[in-house]
Amino acid sequence: MAENNLRVLLRERPKDRPGPEHFELSEGPRPTAAKGEVLVRHRFLSLDPYMRGRMDDAASYARPVPLGGVMEGECVGEVVESQHPGFAPGDWVGGARGWQRYSVAPGGTLLKLPKEGGVPPTAWLGVLGMPGVTAWVGVTEIGQPRPGETFVVSAASGAVGGVAGQVAKQMGARVIGIAGGAEKCRYVTETLGFDACLDHRGDLEAALDAACPEGIDVYFENVGGAVQEAVFPRMREFGRMAFCGTVATYNVRPPPPGPNLSSINRKRLRLQGFIVSDHPRAWPVWRQRGAAWIRDGRLKWKEDVVQGLENAPEAFIGLLEGRNFGKLVVAL
Amino acid sequence: MAENNLRVLLRERPKDRPGPEHFELSEGPRPTAAKGEVLVRHRFLSLDPYMRGRMDDAASYARPVPLGGVMEGECVGEVVESQHPGFAPGDWVGGARGWQRYSVAPGGTLLKLPKEGGVPPTAWLGVLGMPGVTAWVGVTEIGQPRPGETFVVSAASGAVGGVAGQVAKQMGARVIGIAGGAEKCRYVTETLGFDACLDHRGDLEAALDAACPEGIDVYFENVGGAVQEAVFPRMREFGRMAFCGTVATYNVRPPPPGPNLSSINRKRLRLQGFIVSDHPRAWPVWRQRGAAWIRDGRLKWKEDVVQGLENAPEAFIGLLEGRNFGKLVVAL
Repeated sequence: MAENNLRVLLRERPKDRPGPEHFELSEGPRPTAAKGEVLVRHRFLSLDPYMRGRMDDAASYARPVPLGGVMEGECVGEVVESQHPGFAPGDWVGGARGWQRYSVAPGGTLLKLPKEGGVPPTAWLGVLGMPGVTAWVGVTEIGQPRPGETFVVSAASGAVGGVAGQVAKQMGARVIGIAGGAEKCRYVTETLGFDACLDHRGDLEAALDAACPEGIDVYFENVGGAVQEAVFPRMREFGRMAFCGTVATYNVRPPPPGPNLSSINRKRLRLQGFIVSDHPRAWPVWRQRGAAWIRDGRLKWKEDVVQGLENAPEAFIGLLEGRNFGKLVVAL
Repeated sequence: MAENNLRVLLRERPKDRPGPEHFELSEGPRPTAAKGEVLVRHRFLSLDPYMRGRMDDAASYARPVPLGGVMEGECVGEVVESQHPGFAPGDWVGGARGWQRYSVAPGGTLLKLPKEGGVPPTAWLGVLGMPGVTAWVGVTEIGQPRPGETFVVSAASGAVGGVAGQVAKQMGARVIGIAGGAEKCRYVTETLGFDACLDHRGDLEAALDAACPEGIDVYFENVGGAVQEAVFPRMREFGRMAFCGTVATYNVRPPPPGPNLSSINRKRLRLQGFIVSDHPRAWPVWRQRGAAWIRDGRLKWKEDVVQGLENAPEAFIGLLEGRNFGKLVVAL
């Protein structure tokens, strides 16, 4: 008998912090592929902070997950059945297939992962996937550090922050990470090669003053909250803040106030938000460049792998609190 | 005997709101022109909100006025003596000559005002001067409204706001002003030709909802404070906020908090500050275009003329509280 499908559904919308009670595990028969479709056995699911927004019923750039619907998310997996000429059983593919073991997708919506070596399948969820492209767009198109400028990125050991800092290094910037705890900071400097990494659990204002005595030219914003408060007054004239996300406030209702904005004028700052799905042309560019950088050893990352779809909700809750260390993926 | 020079000096730095006690009137002999220099009898002095920043001893884009120094400001006036081949007595000139009756300037630092008709000398302090160029840069280079977009500008009856809205109209935007009181609002719609003008002394949030049912594409920020608070959550996706100034908070210490910034990411907003002196190439472009628009009747403005340099401090204090109506100039 064929393995059942297992799915994680949105049971209830959280008011602030999500808990296990907002999710529901559901088991049922696996679907079958119709003409033009492909049945995929997902092997790894990516967990990312943006999913918190999809749990709310609020106007945003993307539609919320409906109550009782499968949680959204990117997966990589193996083709089991194919009714599409471009795919054969055993092929590895990637796509936005949701928190589930199996799914059926039109062939045209799947990315076929190249077979050549050097790039493990999970890389297509992290450094070469949505978080990696996000970092690439945010640094090269929004923040635009110039050689010798000081580039600061928060959540520096995370999936986006780690790539953002490495891209900024390649562009000639002095790169300072911000992360939570000594172990993450050590990884950011020793493995990712940042010039420094500051622990936000310490006195971040003093640490920023010491690490960025002339101020900050580019800030890549992943967290908001107290880190943003420490960074904002330290922006230099003509500084840029690339707003990728503000995970520290996703669970806070109502959202806390922000900084007084009069220095935007005085310092001629540019604060700009972006979302990776608005930049479709960046995806193939980064996938190719990033894969080359993986093969020549220039691009580093770390994965935090959780076993079993049933553990995805707890892992996701921890992600919003910075409990993961490295790109969080679930092995299905 | 030659008329004495009269000057307004900075006597003391204000802690928050400036008062008459922070200024000092000083009378003394007028200077004389050396080789290459020109002696000018100033006829009109421009008063502008940026001068508040020059009274503080804080790091900013421009040096503060020293204690005991002449307050900075733009003037137009007549040449009295010239030791420079490009100028003759009776020529009208403009320049950043300070709050005083006379000054001597190197000829190269003065703008010679064209003699042809249709443009009164005070226009070179307002619509065609620093405030006009500021509006031109902020709209065309920073806010960049597209035809059919909704453009909102605060302090809409003021020197910068009035021009900003008229430029945005020329670019095809739907233009909504915000001003204080029914009389200013009537002027903004009837004389300046904005599509609507909202009184910020009323329920601004409701008025914005009614006037901008689909939200705001471009906001030209002149005031900050409560107006900014009402505008910020009404920005549309991909909206732009051009930060020209935040006069409502110039006298507030410490500055009040601002909005939570997480929507910058969600809505892909761009918040960008600018200062007109960073855009030297825009000056001749706008002076030429604006002068043509004055001659063909397309560009309107209003002046609020105060008589006598001794009344400049009180007029300036009122400017920071929105008590002027139209471009504030002092007739010397």
